[in-house]
This record gives sequence, C-alpha cells and structure tokens, in this order.
Amino acid sequence: MLEAIRQAESRAELVLITGGLGPTRDDITKHVLCDYYGTSLVRNPGVEARIVSWFERRGREVLQVNRDQALLPEACVVLDNPLGTASGMWFDREGGVTVSMPGVPYEMEHIMSEGVIPRMRSVLEANGRSPRRAHRSLLTMGTGESQLAVRIEDLETGWLSKGIKLAYLPSPGSVRIRLTAEGEAVGELDAAHAQVCSRLHDYVVTKNGETVVQALADLWKKEGWTLSVAESCTGGGLGAALVASPGASQYFLGGVQSYSNQAKSELLGVPPEWISEHGAVSEPVARAMAEGAKSALHAHFGVGITGIAGPEGGSDQKPVGTVFIACSGPNGTQCEVHHFGRDRTRNLGMTIRAACRLILEVGRSNSIVMNSGAKGVVDSL
Amino acid sequence: MLEAIRQAESRAELVLITGGLGPTRDDITKHVLCDYYGTSLVRNPGVEARIVSWFERRGREVLQVNRDQALLPEACVVLDNPLGTASGMWFDREGGVTVSMPGVPYEMEHIMSEGVIPRMRSVLEANGRSPRRAHRSLLTMGTGESQLAVRIEDLETGWLSKGIKLAYLPSPGSVRIRLTAEGEAVGELDAAHAQVCSRLHDYVVTKNGETVVQALADLWKKEGWTLSVAESCTGGGLGAALVASPGASQYFLGGVQSYSNQAKSELLGVPPEWISEHGAVSEPVARAMAEGAKSALHAHFGVGITGIAGPEGGSDQKPVGTVFIACSGPNGTQCEVHHFGRDRTRNLGMTIRAACRLILEVGRSNSIVMNSGAKGVVDSL
Repeated sequence: MLEAIRQAESRAELVLITGGLGPTRDDITKHVLCDYYGTSLVRNPGVEARIVSWFERRGREVLQVNRDQALLPEACVVLDNPLGTASGMWFDREGGVTVSMPGVPYEMEHIMSEGVIPRMRSVLEANGRSPRRAHRSLLTMGTGESQLAVRIEDLETGWLSKGIKLAYLPSPGSVRIRLTAEGEAVGELDAAHAQVCSRLHDYVVTKNGETVVQALADLWKKEGWTLSVAESCTGGGLGAALVASPGASQYFLGGVQSYSNQAKSELLGVPPEWISEHGAVSEPVARAMAEGAKSALHAHFGVGITGIAGPEGGSDQKPVGTVFIACSGPNGTQCEVHHFGRDRTRNLGMTIRAACRLILEVGRSNSIVMNSGAKGVVDSL
Repeated sequence: MLEAIRQAESRAELVLITGGLGPTRDDITKHVLCDYYGTSLVRNPGVEARIVSWFERRGREVLQVNRDQALLPEACVVLDNPLGTASGMWFDREGGVTVSMPGVPYEMEHIMSEGVIPRMRSVLEANGRSPRRAHRSLLTMGTGESQLAVRIEDLETGWLSKGIKLAYLPSPGSVRIRLTAEGEAVGELDAAHAQVCSRLHDYVVTKNGETVVQALADLWKKEGWTLSVAESCTGGGLGAALVASPGASQYFLGGVQSYSNQAKSELLGVPPEWISEHGAVSEPVARAMAEGAKSALHAHFGVGITGIAGPEGGSDQKPVGTVFIACSGPNGTQCEVHHFGRDRTRNLGMTIRAACRLILEVGRSNSIVMNSGAKGVVDSL
C-alpha cells in the first residue's frame, strides 16, 4: 500500500483511495496513512459523538471498535460520512491532494459528491485554475460501435486537430458516444454534438445521453400517460428498472409477472389454446400479454415480454435467446422478436433494454400522431 | 500505459489487463503492447474467419475495422473469444505472464475462466507449484461487522499465528466472512469454519457462503414447493432476483407488481377499505398482498412487499425507508417491518435481500415442522 500511494502521488495531483476503513482487523488503511504521512491517530470527539448516535438510532450496542473509528490521523481534514461510521480523510500535500474514503459504494459516493468535489473545485479556483474540459454525450442503440465509427470517421478526423475527442462506450445493446473538448474547443462542442446526432440519426435514442428509462419516464409524465407490464422471462426486471428512478408512480401502475402459463391465462387473459398452439414464447402470446396488462391494470400502454433466457429450454425453431416483446397503445400493438445469445444474465439485461427502447418508440410515434391532429385518442381510453 | 505495464510486471508474476481492444480509434491497447514487447501485428486467418462469421450470423455488414480485429501481436498466444470480436492475448515473459482481455465484462469473464485460469494452472503445475491457498466463506445477516468481529476475536487471534486469516466483506444488509488458509493451515480450515459458524449461529444465513437466493431456490426445489410474489415498492425486483438464477421456473410461478392501489385490490384482493384505513404501506396490506399472491398464483407460499422507497412519500409515522414484508405459507403468515434509510436505491436492494431472508426463514421453519411429524400440510393445499 505504501508503494502504491507513493507511485500514485508521483503521477497525479489528486489521488483517491477507497476501502479499508472499517472496524475489523483487516482494515489497515488509516494505519498505513499515518505511517506514510508521519502522523498519528487522535480521537475526534465530534466524530465519536456521531458514531455513538448512529448506533443508538439503530438500537445497537456501541462497541469499543466502533468508537475507535473516531481515531483519525492528526494531519488530515475529516470529511463527514452521515451514511456510515467511517469518515473520509483529506490530506493536503505539496503539489496535490490525497483522499481516503470508505469502500461501501453509496458512502463513498456521498463523500465524493458532498466533500471531495466541492473542496477540489475551491482548490482549483484558489489556484486560478478552472476545469477546462467539457463533455457531451448521446445514446445509440441498434448497431455496433464500428458501424457508428465508420459513419462519422471524417468528422472525428477533422476534430482531432481542434481538440475534440470521441469515446465509444459500449454496453450490451447500446453504445454511448462521448465528445470531450479541451481549452478553446469547448466553444465548438455543441455544434460537433449536433453533427454527430444528425449523422447517426437512425440509431440515436437520446441526444443528451440520458438512459432510455429516463427518456421514457419523462415522456410518459409529460403526456400524462400510464404504463403497465406483463413479464415472463424477465420475472419483474422491467418493472424494477422503471421504479429504480424516483417518481415512477406518476406513470407506472404495475403489472403481472406471468412466469407460469396459468398466470398468463388467469391474470392476463391469454387464451390457453394460443399457448398450446403457438407456445408460451410466441408473437400471439406476447401481444395478448401486452393487451392483457393494459386492460388488467387500466393503463394507456401495456408491455408483454416472453422469451427463453437460457441456458435450458431452447429448441431448433426457438433457440435460447429468442425473445418476443410487444407494446400495446391507443393505436394498436407492435411486436418485435429478438435473437440474443446464450448467456442468461446478458439475455435478461438485453431484453429489458430492448423493451424500454420499444416502449419509447411507440410512445414517441404516438406523441407525433397526437400532435398532428389525432389528439384525444389517449383520452378516449 | 507503458509505465503502468512496466510497474505491474515488476511487482507481479501475473498481470491482467482489460479493455481497449475494440475496433474504434480510442482502442489502443494492442498497439501499446506491440511497442512494449517489440513485436508487430500480424493477421490471424482463423480469428478473421470467426469475426466474419460472427457478423454474418447477425446479418450485419463486416467492415474493414472489424476484420482488423484479427490483427494481433505476433509474440502472443491468442485466447479465443466466442462471445465477441476482440481476442484475448497471452504474453509469456521471463518470470511471469501478462494477459490482455476485452473490457466487456461477460467476454472478459469467459476468457478468464476458459482461457486464462486453466492455462495458469498448467504453468504452475509445470513448475511444480500448486495453489497453496484455500478459502471457506459464510454469509451472515442481522448485525454489523464489528459485532461479528467482537464475538470471534479470540478465535481470530489464535488463528493468526497458524496462518488462517479472516476477511469481513460487508454489503448492504449482509456480511460475508471469508476464511483463508495458506500452507499447512489448509488442513485446519474446515474445523475453523465450523467454529465460526457455531459461534455466530444466530446470524448465519448460509454456511457455505452461497447467496440467500441460492439457498432459497435449493430448499424450494428440494421440497417441491412453489412461490409467488406481490411487489409494490420494489416493482418486480424480487421476482427479477429470483429468475436471475437458471431453473427458477421449477418453483417460481410469478406474481403481481401492484404498484397502484387499484392493482392491489383488483388483482390481489386487498380490501380497498384496509388501504384507506391503514395506508398502502401497512402490515394488514402486506399480509393481504402475500395471501393474495399465494391464492392468485395457486402457490404454496406468497410474499407481499409494500414500502416507501423515497426520496418522497414519507410521513412522521412512516418515514422514507419504512417497508413491510409478509410471507404467507401453509402454517400462516409472518410479517416484519423494516426501517431502512433515505437512499432509494439502497432501500430497494435492502428490501429485496430482507424479503429473501424472510422467505428462507419461513421455508426452513416449515421444513422442520414437516419433518417433525406435521408432514402433509403443504400437500393438502
């Protein structure tokens, strides 16, 4: 650890360390930092009081090892951690700053956003330096990064000399493109971003880089629509993705996790003979699930998902990775079939993202229809 | 990158590099490795044929930049990547091995488990070295790491000199304890593990360290039980957690995402007057949801979850983070209330884990009842 800190400090003005601040014996970061900076641990009464009240609020006994989390290096500035018992530590050093934060992700994120970033900004401003980088991003779906790159190769080449760089950030099912400008190029960033969006128009899902779920939630709230789901292979994952963002209750009514065939028929009204005739994983069943969800939950839009996530359950006609997704709205039902791969986890993730994209598309085209004279179709439901 | 590789190689016998192997201009790892090892890129016909067929199977055009992913350093052993177009690269060096893998997680994991680990094992065996480390782990819930550590402090102290170490790995809602033995201490590892399990008995959820979902699925499959869910605040997240493991259809029948109150009443039979009287987030509603899910899906066990995930919607009596979880089985319905924190994402995750633990508890006590003479209660459903 000593060597890692030494190397990091020799390379960077800001060094961020996470983890090793807990109360157990395997947590040694504080001690290493004391060795490194030639300082020693002192008890911080304010932090100790906070730790004691943290345990009291939870009705749990405060042990000596918990109190000892208030022993902090004398040479550091303590960064408050209201979400846990391990404080952050800010060390000023010649030529830079080193920060130690707990490893629990949401505690670290809180200290980072509330403690480290504002403080770092002040340091930069005090030194007459301001962040000279700016970013724009967009989200694409429907093709791979190489196809995207070829379409904007000439733009990218032209921008390189000006100081605008592109990064392709692929996830399963989507590619985020990030434009970064430094120095004077910052002023040209919006124009460059608009050019990329226009050139890649067929694949752009969100121009501001927000996720499909965010774009979908914004549209549904703006239009005052409601949405319901019927999920087979995803087991509830689409609903979970929707409610991950606060405010989902403004448009999401719920749904049916119709994992069994009986649930598909009894709760969603899918005719059992369709299941025996076409199979549970089929276009008619996906459509009936979407329509069943719409009607059972009294929603403007309903979504149906049925597929073979794997690794078992595939056949020659319907291999593992086959997924039908239907979205039913005021203007009818759209259904698409996907052929994902062999990996269950990936198939489930791809299915949820593809469903969100289909819902967004159906919503957007419905929005256009409404705004071009057919207003009221939704209200008439 | 050159400096990072140099440093890593000076410290470790095995260096693993991920990322930067894609087809776009920002992918430079291959070129850096050629510089570093003084080798050059050569076209690998086998890899190129695989890339071409990868695109053809997906009905997508093969671009030159895709074909060029078959340009690989002459000095490396190519590690196949059947899940993508970027190959892994294995570089033998004096005193060790450096491996470069794509950054897409599931591609990297495949190359790691199929290519790197078996090959590394052969290298160690060829040199007459075998892995001298062994691990055991257990999963606990219900108290913090410091409370656990204090309870086994004397054991830990005694083991340190023998070469058995403990690591406390906390996640929101649970702490995994991992025992690691080196050298001769490997032979004492099972006894040490049994001592920890016995000492921490009240908090141990799984003795083999498997997740609560795995333990739950194993028990339900073994007993031939079925399970259904009714999810309000989690929106489907519990169902999604259950179906994440293959074979869930053997016990999971599905459920209802009753985000709206209308869904709670119409699809689960929760009396609307209970909702207006006690509130949607209340013990009677959670119980009725669990029982409604059990009966609507014709399952042996039903789960009901209703809570305030936040950040809005809390009140003085029921602050953000209040969650009721009920589990209804053949021997009645158990309900518990939790008071999590203010963070929506964390509250949703904690709720799902707490629900799995409650289901497992109810199932285990039911299993004991059944095996002590009350057999048949489940079959009589």
